[in-house]
Amino acid sequence: MRDFKYFTPTEVVFGRESEAALPGLLKKYGAHKVLIHYGGGSAVRSGLIASIESALTEACIPFVKLGGVVPNPHLSLVYEGIELCRKEHVDFILAVGGGSVIDSSKAIAYGLAYEGDVWDFYDAKAAPKASFPVGVVLTIPASGSEMSDSSVITNTERGQKRGCNSDFCRPKFAIMNPERSFTLPAFQTACGVTDIMMHTMERYFSPDSPMSITDAVAEGLMRTVRIDGEAVLQHPDNYDLRASIMWSGSLAHNGLTGCGGRFDFGTHRLEHELSTMYDVAHGAGLAALWCHWAKYVFDVNPARFASFAEKVMDICPLDAGGKRLPDRELGLMGIEAMRAFYKRIGMPTNIPELIGRKATEEEMVTMAERCSRGGTFTVGNFLVLDRARMLEIYRLAND
Amino acid sequence: MRDFKYFTPTEVVFGRESEAALPGLLKKYGAHKVLIHYGGGSAVRSGLIASIESALTEACIPFVKLGGVVPNPHLSLVYEGIELCRKEHVDFILAVGGGSVIDSSKAIAYGLAYEGDVWDFYDAKAAPKASFPVGVVLTIPASGSEMSDSSVITNTERGQKRGCNSDFCRPKFAIMNPERSFTLPAFQTACGVTDIMMHTMERYFSPDSPMSITDAVAEGLMRTVRIDGEAVLQHPDNYDLRASIMWSGSLAHNGLTGCGGRFDFGTHRLEHELSTMYDVAHGAGLAALWCHWAKYVFDVNPARFASFAEKVMDICPLDAGGKRLPDRELGLMGIEAMRAFYKRIGMPTNIPELIGRKATEEEMVTMAERCSRGGTFTVGNFLVLDRARMLEIYRLAND
Repeated sequence: MRDFKYFTPTEVVFGRESEAALPGLLKKYGAHKVLIHYGGGSAVRSGLIASIESALTEACIPFVKLGGVVPNPHLSLVYEGIELCRKEHVDFILAVGGGSVIDSSKAIAYGLAYEGDVWDFYDAKAAPKASFPVGVVLTIPASGSEMSDSSVITNTERGQKRGCNSDFCRPKFAIMNPERSFTLPAFQTACGVTDIMMHTMERYFSPDSPMSITDAVAEGLMRTVRIDGEAVLQHPDNYDLRASIMWSGSLAHNGLTGCGGRFDFGTHRLEHELSTMYDVAHGAGLAALWCHWAKYVFDVNPARFASFAEKVMDICPLDAGGKRLPDRELGLMGIEAMRAFYKRIGMPTNIPELIGRKATEEEMVTMAERCSRGGTFTVGNFLVLDRARMLEIYRLAND
Repeated sequence: MRDFKYFTPTEVVFGRESEAALPGLLKKYGAHKVLIHYGGGSAVRSGLIASIESALTEACIPFVKLGGVVPNPHLSLVYEGIELCRKEHVDFILAVGGGSVIDSSKAIAYGLAYEGDVWDFYDAKAAPKASFPVGVVLTIPASGSEMSDSSVITNTERGQKRGCNSDFCRPKFAIMNPERSFTLPAFQTACGVTDIMMHTMERYFSPDSPMSITDAVAEGLMRTVRIDGEAVLQHPDNYDLRASIMWSGSLAHNGLTGCGGRFDFGTHRLEHELSTMYDVAHGAGLAALWCHWAKYVFDVNPARFASFAEKVMDICPLDAGGKRLPDRELGLMGIEAMRAFYKRIGMPTNIPELIGRKATEEEMVTMAERCSRGGTFTVGNFLVLDRARMLEIYRLAND
């Protein structure tokens, strides 16, 4: 195991009554004027935005609003948000929505504390040294951005989807009411379940020797999300299941499930190119790639995949005679079980299922080119992936 | 499940190189003058205090020192610390040690931010509204105080051991180097293992319906501590085992393992009277009581004890014919397995083993009287314990 840091300062208020805490939290964290940042119709249609406006008005907290965040959120709206906040002297960004809204809010918060172009941070030209404060009212469990240090923004002009990680952008608070996720469509719910599991899978498949307590927590979380994630699709109004998914989403990506090891995040990086190229849902893109990534990197550590099969996918590790299966066999069974799980929850398991046709060779070359930043950049740690390997995985996923 | 709050702002730096972060963390959290607060000989003998003094001197951070914290830390030293800090204009308390030192530091930090008698907070006469900042260099994994909201102080004059909980006292940072725990004697190591498991057991045995993700994390943690805790007694210099115990100690009591349910903490409250009466080690006192508490409250929810048996104690839930055992049978097997575990790690399993003789009836009546604050106070939630029930449990543990 390796030395690690763990820092999750976000104050979480979780449950049916959680939204009542909003005005108090805004005051506690020093908000004088708030940007309410949100996405499309559902936060408005559900009455959530209106109820937040009322609560802030009643608490004498002035605000301005900026909606219109889209999945794979755009840099252009981030710029607009920064300009609006400067003009209106906003000093606190309130994200109302899911990962796209939160990531866009974090980018605005970075930009407000920086004199240059905020894209510098995503383009790795500069590292953030400060951020304005961000708070979250979560409606879509998936990204874990409500507690994470991560923000991912798409620069449509350049065809680039890039992330920026720093502790500065960890939200001050997160209000989580599982009831807000009752109306999520099945496809979006399944995308969230996939993303949540993947945030911990990206940490579980580490090149480092595992830390037993981290493994226990990670395996427990992935297994729970697998079981409850499948169940919630049958019972979308079940509070306890929605709550389990929502809270798991935060724990899966706040750092807890990776303590003591380096993370991989190769599948995530490969997927960012899929969603940039085809504007697909991030979770669906992950499902389309993972089994192919897993088979490609399998030989690095079959025992790790065997543990995953047994402890996460609940595959009996014994043969009919009571003898333990070889790691290779068990590990491959785990990957196949994951593929079957994706199918059951309505996720694609390859690129054609994701985009409705095969990717062209030219598109795959472009994605590998972009992901490797012209061949200068590798992704992943379990197995380090250069441009050539990226292309091989895209091709495997395209079959 | 119930609504919950989760707030763990402590910045953790974990590993062999963690101590190098100390000066930077003190500056980050605004320390201008530091009280180095510690216990007896080992922190001095090991050279840790001297190395901290050097590091602070080199970083131009002035400090004063106050040693002498004892297990079940005394209010009298807290008063001394408050006076010293006021005289010396200390604005940051650095705890170097285990739970007693951290709890004493938290009490000093509360006292510095309060005009009245700091005991008011422990005597439930007032609630803290502020605290000076506390940081931790952890040497003994057990209490979880390095991330928790808890502080327990003994008022020897009154014969009272009382806790105070508030988010104000959660440490700003915790530096954890597992190597510092290599030299812990076996008995103290086992006391720590017992306390760590118990912090999550006190949350697991909740009167509320469980949250699946919380159960998964809690069961994984308790099982890991049980296995690694027994192994570390055989291999006291094993870094990975010491690390597992140390990090589990923080996670077991920072709130993570109780999200969505009320905690019990009845065994803890009963134990506080044992350690006040006999000045025994807290972990040993817990082991002496738990199995008797468990049998006393068992009928409230045998299924919960059955889950504990299966998922924490690794008891096969099937009989020889492959049929699932009844919850009652499985649950009682779990309690017996826990008793056997305590014996294997050298912990007492009743009061005579703890104090070397039977408690007198008068002593037990006094403990129940104190624990119930003269019959006005109950403890526990899984089963609420009044004075009469407390006395019954003491008597069961005395047989």
